[in-house]
Amino acid sequence: MNFVGSHILSVSQFDRQAIESVFSVAEAMEPYAQRKRVTRVLEGAILGSMFFEPSTRTRVSFGCAFNLLGGEVRETTEIKATAIAKGESFYDTARVLSGYSDVIVMRHELEGSVAEFASASRVPVLNAGDGANEHPSQALLDLYTIRKELQGRGKTIDNLRIALIGDLRYGRAVHSLVKLLCLFTNVQFTLVSPPELALPAVYLDAIRAAGHQLVESTQMNSSISNADILYVTRTQEERFPSLAEAAKYKGLFRLNQATYTQFCEPNTVIMHPLPRDSRGDANELDNDLNENPNLAIFRQTDNGVTIRMALFALILDVVDEVDKHSREVNWYTARRLP
Amino acid sequence: MNFVGSHILSVSQFDRQAIESVFSVAEAMEPYAQRKRVTRVLEGAILGSMFFEPSTRTRVSFGCAFNLLGGEVRETTEIKATAIAKGESFYDTARVLSGYSDVIVMRHELEGSVAEFASASRVPVLNAGDGANEHPSQALLDLYTIRKELQGRGKTIDNLRIALIGDLRYGRAVHSLVKLLCLFTNVQFTLVSPPELALPAVYLDAIRAAGHQLVESTQMNSSISNADILYVTRTQEERFPSLAEAAKYKGLFRLNQATYTQFCEPNTVIMHPLPRDSRGDANELDNDLNENPNLAIFRQTDNGVTIRMALFALILDVVDEVDKHSREVNWYTARRLP
Amino acid sequence: MNFVGSHILSVSQFDRQAIESVFSVAEAMEPYAQRKRVTRVLEGAILGSMFFEPSTRTRVSFGCAFNLLGGEVRETTEIKATAIAKGESFYDTARVLSGYSDVIVMRHELEGSVAEFASASRVPVLNAGDGANEHPSQALLDLYTIRKELQGRGKTIDNLRIALIGDLRYGRAVHSLVKLLCLFTNVQFTLVSPPELALPAVYLDAIRAAGHQLVESTQMNSSISNADILYVTRTQEERFPSLAEAAKYKGLFRLNQATYTQFCEPNTVIMHPLPRDSRGDANELDNDLNENPNLAIFRQTDNGVTIRMALFALILDVVDEVDKHSREVNWYTARRLP
Repeated sequence: MNFVGSHILSVSQFDRQAIESVFSVAEAMEPYAQRKRVTRVLEGAILGSMFFEPSTRTRVSFGCAFNLLGGEVRETTEIKATAIAKGESFYDTARVLSGYSDVIVMRHELEGSVAEFASASRVPVLNAGDGANEHPSQALLDLYTIRKELQGRGKTIDNLRIALIGDLRYGRAVHSLVKLLCLFTNVQFTLVSPPELALPAVYLDAIRAAGHQLVESTQMNSSISNADILYVTRTQEERFPSLAEAAKYKGLFRLNQATYTQFCEPNTVIMHPLPRDSRGDANELDNDLNENPNLAIFRQTDNGVTIRMALFALILDVVDEVDKHSREVNWYTARRLP
Repeated sequence: MNFVGSHILSVSQFDRQAIESVFSVAEAMEPYAQRKRVTRVLEGAILGSMFFEPSTRTRVSFGCAFNLLGGEVRETTEIKATAIAKGESFYDTARVLSGYSDVIVMRHELEGSVAEFASASRVPVLNAGDGANEHPSQALLDLYTIRKELQGRGKTIDNLRIALIGDLRYGRAVHSLVKLLCLFTNVQFTLVSPPELALPAVYLDAIRAAGHQLVESTQMNSSISNADILYVTRTQEERFPSLAEAAKYKGLFRLNQATYTQFCEPNTVIMHPLPRDSRGDANELDNDLNENPNLAIFRQTDNGVTIRMALFALILDVVDEVDKHSREVNWYTARRLP
Repeated sequence: MNFVGSHILSVSQFDRQAIESVFSVAEAMEPYAQRKRVTRVLEGAILGSMFFEPSTRTRVSFGCAFNLLGGEVRETTEIKATAIAKGESFYDTARVLSGYSDVIVMRHELEGSVAEFASASRVPVLNAGDGANEHPSQALLDLYTIRKELQGRGKTIDNLRIALIGDLRYGRAVHSLVKLLCLFTNVQFTLVSPPELALPAVYLDAIRAAGHQLVESTQMNSSISNADILYVTRTQEERFPSLAEAAKYKGLFRLNQATYTQFCEPNTVIMHPLPRDSRGDANELDNDLNENPNLAIFRQTDNGVTIRMALFALILDVVDEVDKHSREVNWYTARRLP
């Protein structure tokens, strides 16, 4: 895969080598993401941030990643009310808006919409979520987090033991992560969900076709004892036929410190695509885990900035220029460091 | 006309020399607008972008133009809900907000509102549309596009042959363009519209007073054969007394590749102020023209950035400084180039 | 008080020395706020601007202050619709969002919410208003304005004579200003309000405990003759039990040029936290005062930018670096200067 000038629309674009490229660049971005150094490599470049549906964390994460490379961000968060209402085609919108920036990040509620936009765009487009379809930077940051957390434990993604827990049917993040893990070897999957929220067959087939091991379970406690990573998910109630239907499954699996201590190997890593649902009837990851050093959920979101910096640097072909335009940070950053 | 420190409120401010100044500066901005070079001449300056009604393309176009000169943009897109609701006068709003930036661009639904704001502002104000009244940068980018398109054909705005097609009654862009064309000599106008949507008398009078030629028609096909420029417009249904009334006129004139090939001179340029209405019952400019190299509609919006850069450079008095603060672009831009 | 890395949540954090520090840094910021010089000291830093309720002037003032120090701003103005609706705790929101920026400014309608957010944040947080509770930068800019206006008159905050006029019950700005003035000596307060909108007892007690003089009155004209500062406020109708209740008090005190000339000492300074209510039934500060050079209300909002620059510089520990990264302004600024 050649990143330069490419759209990033789907995790299916990535082979193992492409993933390694992204992760290698991401590592080079760490000093900038962690505010040890400043780079101005993209000074003068403009990111067009086009969110046709609301988002805070993904939108801000992409925007900060571009700022950290020295570029500017022009945002649109209320496109619905504008030209499209006057009968403008998506093609026209893409031709016009892509003239304003050097790269675009876009979210839209319709599946395939970002790819359609990209086909008419004159600059590279990054998919930040098109409905239930794809959100590739989320999958990459999840995989990057797994890799980093395991590195400190002397392990690799090859031979990973991972338990996926919760709503495996509607969770877009889980699906994309599974697809990426199928590029690696000898992964041991434990899938924990009620039967009605099981991982769709297409992903089960992919896991088997990749030669990975697969165990399905409806019980959490007995399934988390031999895992390197617990990947816990929220019940995606907004995608269920009704809230009443979703309510049947909320709170079914709850991990807290006591459960963790009793059932998990020491240093089992806890991940979650966030937001976690901390309401009493859900609470899949209890707040009493917040002081557990193996809770990686906020390192995950931090890694999101790093991964997005890497994607921008690769697409805009400035990987080798980043350090040349850099210097030390000269302001207070102490609270951020662990 | 002295641009330095001036408000840009109306096309009536411009004489022919002022237009030539804007276009001359715009040409100097092209390498920056096209991402061949980066300039940082306005590094540290702030544009206050105040859109009291929603807009994507005009808002982003102004913002990008300012970023491309090195400046920052602070935006407001939801002013209604704030101080004005607590009884604040427009005078106060202008005094306060103009203290925050070096130049302001503003859109508001009330005619004359931007001029009223400007009279109390402590920094220059650019009108980005005040209701049905004025949108001067749109008229300037249209005229600049005509000039650039004709240049490649060995022609000039003097002696231009232009057909204005569609809703000539409610189209603000058409009215402003006509006013600017009256500053030139020997323009041949063909006005194509149903009688109910004819160009208002004040503009007909201006055309005649300027000594231009004028033909009115209700038929498109017979009227487009001797034109350098076809300027096609959308039925501005939102300004009609009712949608039912507007519906009578939608789809009345439809230009497609077959019509173009049959009736137009080779290389006739097609323009449109955008958005074009691509719904089946309207479709004034068919998508089968998208590959026609004479379709200039996306070059028009690109020129919008260039023209706005020129206006900022003139008003803030940095025209002679732009190149001094410049360097080559160091990131991928290949897809953008034609 | 050590500012470096601190949250700014309440005026109660400030002692007299801390205030002097802020004002001293603010004075050093003046050439930058007034566009005489440009500094890039925070180039590469990111401000997370998180407004959970709408605001134009405070939001833009903080954003411009950060831009004027060379930093970038990532804004969120519609957080309600996002992760929190999916059951995310405030703790999680703070952990995630604070990973994206170097400092955060936040407004939220709930009292104490900003402090709660700050306790989980990994970067310093500035309170830009948490409901009826605190808005410390407003109080600081008011006090800074008093100091600057009096300087030209050979006076100081010690021995100040100030008349607070209008809705002293619901005005958050008045309450915070009173708290700060209690750190100084021998202030003479004249409190002008209807009994129902009198200053709450806790502030009266604080004034007395500080050894200040205190006169209460229900008549404006007889109360403004021996003041250095008139601090006039709007009836905060949105905080009353009903608009009908608020209507009883609107228009009760109206200062205009004739009243000012008849009753005030020459050069009495007029302040107002803005917005002033210029509707006919309110009009607490008449527009005929706009040409009065003692009307300081727009100097107040200008000072807001300066004060916010000072807070950022102190918190991020770059006070001594500001000038080193500076140069002259190279664009038009003439209209701004008085």
